[in-house]
Amino acid sequence: MADILHRVGVEHSSPERVYAALTTVDGLSGWWTEQTSGVAEVGGVLEFRFAAGGFDMKVVELVAGRRVCWEVVDGPPEWVGTVVRWELRQEGDFTIVVFAHEGWREPVEFMYHCSTKWAVFLLSLKRFLETGVGAPDPRDVRISDWH
Amino acid sequence: MADILHRVGVEHSSPERVYAALTTVDGLSGWWTEQTSGVAEVGGVLEFRFAAGGFDMKVVELVAGRRVCWEVVDGPPEWVGTVVRWELRQEGDFTIVVFAHEGWREPVEFMYHCSTKWAVFLLSLKRFLETGVGAPDPRDVRISDWH
Repeated sequence: MADILHRVGVEHSSPERVYAALTTVDGLSGWWTEQTSGVAEVGGVLEFRFAAGGFDMKVVELVAGRRVCWEVVDGPPEWVGTVVRWELRQEGDFTIVVFAHEGWREPVEFMYHCSTKWAVFLLSLKRFLETGVGAPDPRDVRISDWH
Repeated sequence: MADILHRVGVEHSSPERVYAALTTVDGLSGWWTEQTSGVAEVGGVLEFRFAAGGFDMKVVELVAGRRVCWEVVDGPPEWVGTVVRWELRQEGDFTIVVFAHEGWREPVEFMYHCSTKWAVFLLSLKRFLETGVGAPDPRDVRISDWH
């Protein structure tokens, strides 16, 4: 098993604001993909669509202002069954976002791509909260031939 | 053991140009840190310095236009003994850079930070080669309270 790990700090925000950007369709549309729909409550399924396909995430855990956990229930075969975890806390002027996309069966090259692309979207989340303008798909930063 | 993995594609470049950016002091200064010095040949040690410390990397393998491998011989205790590998190949208009920072003893929170920060520097490498202007330290993108 292999994991993608990231950490960013959002300045002049709060765990509650970051949590809202991870747990509402409006928030998620502001930094990950404009084509976000579905049910953001525990047991609900969020549908994220991109130019090149998409993912369905079941919301498995929510702790207000502290933790969000999704399980991938549909999408590329390498993603199905993996888990995405978000942990939030405040440190001085920064809301710290500790991110893990866990449980990849093999470190295939697609995982290398997704690791870099998650970093790009975490920086989009940071910018969305700090400035009001993120870079969700289709306005996301292209990193390679795989988009 | 845990690994940081990334993949980017550099457009309108070549494996030889990317290789030069990874194996010369001038190249490395253009995208990672302006304070780069040392010996870039196999067996030599490259010294990378940042506002908040730095790393010494022993060059352990070089295959022109294809592969670069460093071992961390000095720096933060979590880094010492880890290995940084770069694999290059051409795919259509993109030079594909497959990156791994391998052998972390534990997935400590500093590893999460370094994973995101490596993505930022890989995008700096991409921009350096595509436009001539990278974002090396001290002009790098700040991602959190840990810089």
